[in-house]
Amino acid sequence: MKIACLLGPDFEDSEFQKPYDEFKSAGHEVVVIGLEAGQELSGKKGKAKCSTDKAIDEVNPDEFDAVFIPGGHSPDQLRADERMINFTRYMMEANKPCFAICHGPQLLLSADCHKNRTMTAWKTVQGDLQKAGANVVDESVCVDGNLVTSRMPDDIPDFIAKSLELLSGSREQPEAA
Amino acid sequence: MKIACLLGPDFEDSEFQKPYDEFKSAGHEVVVIGLEAGQELSGKKGKAKCSTDKAIDEVNPDEFDAVFIPGGHSPDQLRADERMINFTRYMMEANKPCFAICHGPQLLLSADCHKNRTMTAWKTVQGDLQKAGANVVDESVCVDGNLVTSRMPDDIPDFIAKSLELLSGSREQPEAA
Repeated sequence: MKIACLLGPDFEDSEFQKPYDEFKSAGHEVVVIGLEAGQELSGKKGKAKCSTDKAIDEVNPDEFDAVFIPGGHSPDQLRADERMINFTRYMMEANKPCFAICHGPQLLLSADCHKNRTMTAWKTVQGDLQKAGANVVDESVCVDGNLVTSRMPDDIPDFIAKSLELLSGSREQPEAA
Repeated sequence: MKIACLLGPDFEDSEFQKPYDEFKSAGHEVVVIGLEAGQELSGKKGKAKCSTDKAIDEVNPDEFDAVFIPGGHSPDQLRADERMINFTRYMMEANKPCFAICHGPQLLLSADCHKNRTMTAWKTVQGDLQKAGANVVDESVCVDGNLVTSRMPDDIPDFIAKSLELLSGSREQPEAA
């Protein structure tokens, strides 16, 4: 499966790196999409680095099977750009697997993809989602149809496991999502 | 007037420093309140530094005439702590002047002080406020009763002017707010 990873400055290091590594180990392709191509991004803890593969302008969501949104300060910066919001909304409306952790669901909120969805997020974002009408749960991972959400770095193993499960299911039954 | 400034790590440098300086120049006292006292905080751009005067545990909102919430990454970190949310809510419910800029209104949102209020914020936060039921405007400064809000560093002069105006009005008519 071809996964679009939406990434901006000061992402949460492990929330990007660990799922990225595991998705690739499982045989998936991960394309890191930023506001520009070849942008050098660092994690907010200075432990992870990444150069973006593609600019948001260069990609078409139809090319991708899934979208992955790591946390940290990255999602709030990405959602300041309408193209990132549109990409996210398109993937959600196409019912493709969407994985968002920590502050990642901020992008889903800005894209109006939270309504009638059961989801989780970093604790400060949980309140924003709830006040906006989402059904918020406080669990390590929440799977609602095509949407997998988690709260924080401690949740990463559960987040990866459920995301891989969904990718595997989607691969077997691409029309059933 | 005695102003409580709620501050955490990686605040937006000028959104703290400029109003802080101007409030003091106008003769007001500004007490910087953090999660701990004597905490050394830096702005996210590395241009401003500040040591907190008091811990949130040490202060009583009754001691203060107004509250000031600078932007940056600070407000989202502060609203992860229930005591910061309670302090903010208390000040708002007491109808005392409240000044919040950029991401500062995130603290008002978490404290449920956005309902039936007309306000502004950083553009990504504007959407969160609107979806949660606030009446959001996209202006350099918005005054709604005791509440003064602005969007970003460019708005600082207007933000300071309206905040000082409100402080001056409150001083003359402390019961009229």
